[in-house]
Amino acid sequence: GSDAIIGGFGGTFSLAAANPIFHPLSPTLIGAIDGVGTKLKIAHAMGIHNTVGIDLVAMNVNDLVVQGAEPLFFLDCYSCRKLEVETTAAFVSGVADGCIQAGCALIGGETAEMPGLFVDGTYDAVGAAVGAMNTAGESGRTILPDTGSMKPGDVLLAMASSGPHSNGYSLIRKIVDRSGLSYEDDSPFSMPLYSPSSSSSQPAPSRLSLGVALLTPTRIYVKPLLKALEIRVPGVDVASSPSFAIKGLAHITGGGLVENVPRMLPPTLTAHIKVSSWTLAPVFRWLKRTGDVSAREMSRVFNCGVGMVIVVERGCEAAVRELLEKEGETVYEIGELKANNEGDEERCTLEDLEQWD
Amino acid sequence: GSDAIIGGFGGTFSLAAANPIFHPLSPTLIGAIDGVGTKLKIAHAMGIHNTVGIDLVAMNVNDLVVQGAEPLFFLDCYSCRKLEVETTAAFVSGVADGCIQAGCALIGGETAEMPGLFVDGTYDAVGAAVGAMNTAGESGRTILPDTGSMKPGDVLLAMASSGPHSNGYSLIRKIVDRSGLSYEDDSPFSMPLYSPSSSSSQPAPSRLSLGVALLTPTRIYVKPLLKALEIRVPGVDVASSPSFAIKGLAHITGGGLVENVPRMLPPTLTAHIKVSSWTLAPVFRWLKRTGDVSAREMSRVFNCGVGMVIVVERGCEAAVRELLEKEGETVYEIGELKANNEGDEERCTLEDLEQWD
Repeated sequence: GSDAIIGGFGGTFSLAAANPIFHPLSPTLIGAIDGVGTKLKIAHAMGIHNTVGIDLVAMNVNDLVVQGAEPLFFLDCYSCRKLEVETTAAFVSGVADGCIQAGCALIGGETAEMPGLFVDGTYDAVGAAVGAMNTAGESGRTILPDTGSMKPGDVLLAMASSGPHSNGYSLIRKIVDRSGLSYEDDSPFSMPLYSPSSSSSQPAPSRLSLGVALLTPTRIYVKPLLKALEIRVPGVDVASSPSFAIKGLAHITGGGLVENVPRMLPPTLTAHIKVSSWTLAPVFRWLKRTGDVSAREMSRVFNCGVGMVIVVERGCEAAVRELLEKEGETVYEIGELKANNEGDEERCTLEDLEQWD
Repeated sequence: GSDAIIGGFGGTFSLAAANPIFHPLSPTLIGAIDGVGTKLKIAHAMGIHNTVGIDLVAMNVNDLVVQGAEPLFFLDCYSCRKLEVETTAAFVSGVADGCIQAGCALIGGETAEMPGLFVDGTYDAVGAAVGAMNTAGESGRTILPDTGSMKPGDVLLAMASSGPHSNGYSLIRKIVDRSGLSYEDDSPFSMPLYSPSSSSSQPAPSRLSLGVALLTPTRIYVKPLLKALEIRVPGVDVASSPSFAIKGLAHITGGGLVENVPRMLPPTLTAHIKVSSWTLAPVFRWLKRTGDVSAREMSRVFNCGVGMVIVVERGCEAAVRELLEKEGETVYEIGELKANNEGDEERCTLEDLEQWD
């Protein structure tokens, strides 16, 4: 009852298909696994370990919700050279915080000491999230992206990111090196100061240093999106298709808009995005200027302010936007889907990109 | 619908409890996450990467089957300093091989390059497995261990391990250092030479070097155990308890018999194990002698030849044993459960341990 490995999405497993006698109406399970990546190096440098725990959850649960799945539970595995209780505790309190934000249960974890594998004082953390969605019976719906329902004119909405999230950190660390600043220096750009939940074992930082700014945790889009996924196209019979306003979601991770958006599209459509429809946030402007990074490279390495892109049936964009804004999200209308001209290599065009230079 | 974190077992999530309206008969999901540990260092030293892929699957799926769950799917995450395609391909072919052995689907994977985190040429691999069992409805049964049904006189059966599996490798590497042998030298002890499946991207080793012997993959007990779990106590009404012959299973990992067996027992019972009921395999005799390791320490670090311990209703041990042997397993009857004397600190006593010295 499982699909082959699909690049960029969580893998799916249909309980109903695996055992139609016992489980005709059981949900399809969706699994995701991922680590935090080299953002961990900044956590090590700063001695701040709770925020990367949130990143770990975020990277996985955002990959589930783009398929329309509700995250059920999370597992984490923390590997290091030598276990330091305070570091581990801070990290796990962040994982717990992320699970609360995502509405999923932290059902297991493992810590492993592996001398000889890790550079001194570093650790690695990998997490796995499992979600479910009803694909059979009356409440059943299609696993997203629903490419069959997408058409020219569909609107592209975007949800603002909280910063670079967990991608592009190898380049970020090079740019910081080049800047001559240390992670302890005051941040040269503004950013919301992250406040850990009261259950965190590590206190909130007292000031916005460069390191603290760069550790701003990845935004978790699960709860607002699960609500928005219920919005139906008005006037359409429930039995016909498409009946839901949202047809596809793309979690913008490594590779940026140009690599992540096409993954949710059918081969017949191209995403036309106007990057002037949102303002490049100060952190990205600082990275661009300090690292002398071209606008094109910025768009291929970073999310550039957009953490999630949504394909919405035209006419429904106001309802989706209103709901997401009510949930506290910042939403931009960034473009639309157009018919793919034969021979088009780019499946996601970025207009006004030169305005970033 | 989830339990708190439980040491030594996979975490559980009840779909039926989470959503009783849609999923009254949906299964309980069980998740496990784990890595291979420092056995990876020997894989690096030898340049053999497929067998540790099997270990990764084994560590996780064996943790699921001890709860009575059928593994459904597996996810793996491979992190390294710099991706080397041949190494990764060999590793993933081992993961695929392990999934076939366990009867589960490999539905997703992630590879991550993390410069600055790993010692040169090393990598880490973490896997997560998700299983399901029916806990509601007519086919529903109790998540194991079923401690309530255990009683004095219950028989302890053991399934032979294929070697040290994936535990005790920090000590093993020290002992090899002390032996003066290199991993390329002929193995000073006999061991079955592992033959990779035809789908493996790495060929079978041509001779039993010490490194090859120590890379013998962890035995995957899933398929035989899932069959044995169906054996019922004869003459007992299906509606009464206990109706199944197997009441508990312990996957023997780090901490050996003395730490892993008590985890499946109620506080009122102690496991009495006679270690003379099986022969200490050559690999363990070599490790003991060469490392000058006491019998007691051996029993706390290694599985010492026993990879799985089974609590069986007395009278059913022959049926369980026969089935497992027919499935190709080597089975020992190693002891029984006895009432726990008040004040007993040891919940697993090892008789004849001095015979190992």
